[in-house]
Amino acid sequence: MSAAGYDVTGIGNAIVDVITQSTDKFLIENKIEKGAMTLIDAQRAEELYSRMGAGTESSGGSAANTIAGIASFGGKAAYIGKVADDQLGKTFAHDIKALGVRYATVPLKRGEPTARCLIMVTPDAQRSMSTFLGASSLLTVKDVDAALIKDSQVTFLEGYLFDPAEAKQAFYEAAGIAHEAGRKVSLTLSDKFCVDRHRKDFQHLIETEIDILFANESEIVSLYETKGFDEAVHILRGKCEIAAVTRSEKGSVILQGKDFHIIDPDKVKVIDTTGAGDLYAGGFLFGYTQGFDLVKAGRLGSLAASEVISHFGARPMTSLKELARSKSLI
Amino acid sequence: MSAAGYDVTGIGNAIVDVITQSTDKFLIENKIEKGAMTLIDAQRAEELYSRMGAGTESSGGSAANTIAGIASFGGKAAYIGKVADDQLGKTFAHDIKALGVRYATVPLKRGEPTARCLIMVTPDAQRSMSTFLGASSLLTVKDVDAALIKDSQVTFLEGYLFDPAEAKQAFYEAAGIAHEAGRKVSLTLSDKFCVDRHRKDFQHLIETEIDILFANESEIVSLYETKGFDEAVHILRGKCEIAAVTRSEKGSVILQGKDFHIIDPDKVKVIDTTGAGDLYAGGFLFGYTQGFDLVKAGRLGSLAASEVISHFGARPMTSLKELARSKSLI
Repeated sequence: MSAAGYDVTGIGNAIVDVITQSTDKFLIENKIEKGAMTLIDAQRAEELYSRMGAGTESSGGSAANTIAGIASFGGKAAYIGKVADDQLGKTFAHDIKALGVRYATVPLKRGEPTARCLIMVTPDAQRSMSTFLGASSLLTVKDVDAALIKDSQVTFLEGYLFDPAEAKQAFYEAAGIAHEAGRKVSLTLSDKFCVDRHRKDFQHLIETEIDILFANESEIVSLYETKGFDEAVHILRGKCEIAAVTRSEKGSVILQGKDFHIIDPDKVKVIDTTGAGDLYAGGFLFGYTQGFDLVKAGRLGSLAASEVISHFGARPMTSLKELARSKSLI
Repeated sequence: MSAAGYDVTGIGNAIVDVITQSTDKFLIENKIEKGAMTLIDAQRAEELYSRMGAGTESSGGSAANTIAGIASFGGKAAYIGKVADDQLGKTFAHDIKALGVRYATVPLKRGEPTARCLIMVTPDAQRSMSTFLGASSLLTVKDVDAALIKDSQVTFLEGYLFDPAEAKQAFYEAAGIAHEAGRKVSLTLSDKFCVDRHRKDFQHLIETEIDILFANESEIVSLYETKGFDEAVHILRGKCEIAAVTRSEKGSVILQGKDFHIIDPDKVKVIDTTGAGDLYAGGFLFGYTQGFDLVKAGRLGSLAASEVISHFGARPMTSLKELARSKSLI
């Protein structure tokens, strides 16, 4: 692999999170699928917002959270994603640039507003997400900065990009450019319902385009429609260069060809699981692009995930670089 | 006192907080007065925002935080304050209404945007605030809902209202209506620099219009330009019906005529002191309007303050009603 200016460029739906504490009763009354990400339209977004409690706004988006994690470790990261030219869009851009991330996607001038994700956190720390994609769904091939992709060791894509038709094209475009330049392409499956929506596409993608896959237990079970984890792992094994599968409090399993590693989780008091998978990918990709072995990359993933679930919000609140140093991991 | 539909109506600058973790170095380099609230113009707000780290947006405003606290205890509360008809204004309105607070001030249609307060939290948990008042400074006498004030046991005003000229008029209007209806008027001095700006006005106000005063140690020292706390307390004593003076980790002192009570603080790990004084006032006023004695009101103030300083953000993240019940305070 030739030298690259960036460790990782992430592409995803650029979203601002609105996080509130909620109850199971509220989820049931408002027909919100617990633990999942559900796409909603503008009207439903207005309705839900009017019913939900006081919120805290902070920049989110799955791949953007991963990129924030990489930057927090001190990695060189860039992001591509579409916001509108409005207040939430300005907030998103400010927050990701403030982390030292290169972000230059041109905001949408008219039409849809910046995407928002209404996140209900129940007392069991589970998050249930209702996403209005707005401007983020209007990411197109034109937004894919070819020079940037060529200059990045890894291009990281979120499965959610498959939901908007234009973004899906941008996804394939970016993967093509990366591989042509001899770079790696990484994907996170995002969510088991997302896998449900795009199962065949994802199965094909993993065998043809993906070098490094991130998924959780329920996503790979959904992907291969198996009864359990072990069966899904055996189908997945060898399908891509590296696969890192997270299992919440059980830690993670990393597959590489026919080899595998079992990584224990970092134990913390769980406040809000939002961003756990995103940050695991951030820690792992930081480690991978620094040339660390997969076990160390997995441990950095666990560390980043443990930090983000110990507080509200989907991005780190402490320097992951300092945290990793305090644990002698870097 | 005749029966009232509301326990407390608060009037203040309606502000959205943008909270970020910062360093003393950043404060010095950007000439931000540590621990204080500094008024800034639109240009300075843009500049500071572009330099500061990734933030979390949540509704704030001193009196609004107090009102949020009262609502969280289960009190009947209302709020008057001006936002613009923009995204941050909608966020502010949503958040305060979601707490069950009556809020009906008409948003500003054009001109200034919704006020924002850039809050830098340093590792010592101190917050330094830079406020762009925007639309909040355009609160006028017309926004003072006379029927609401008459129907509230206490009208609670923040000292910061003295900064914008029109809001100051609204302040006097509200106090006049409340007293005419036989209701109580309460004031928080807000900040020692605010006291510096309006010392003579505040001294006069306290003796003529204020029934219940909230202040902290540095504010009363500034108010009477004394060398120490005890001297300031002795000047303040008897000047208004009740005065509750907070002293951070030393707890609070409540003065009533020539009598006094010393209230110990609730000890917690301090993460961010934003909102401590506001929530003390919230707990105290909730207790006072329920007819509890001043010691119990003070203990509810301490409890609410301890909750808000144990996390980032200026409003409670747990139900203060449940918290008070768990401590057998209500």
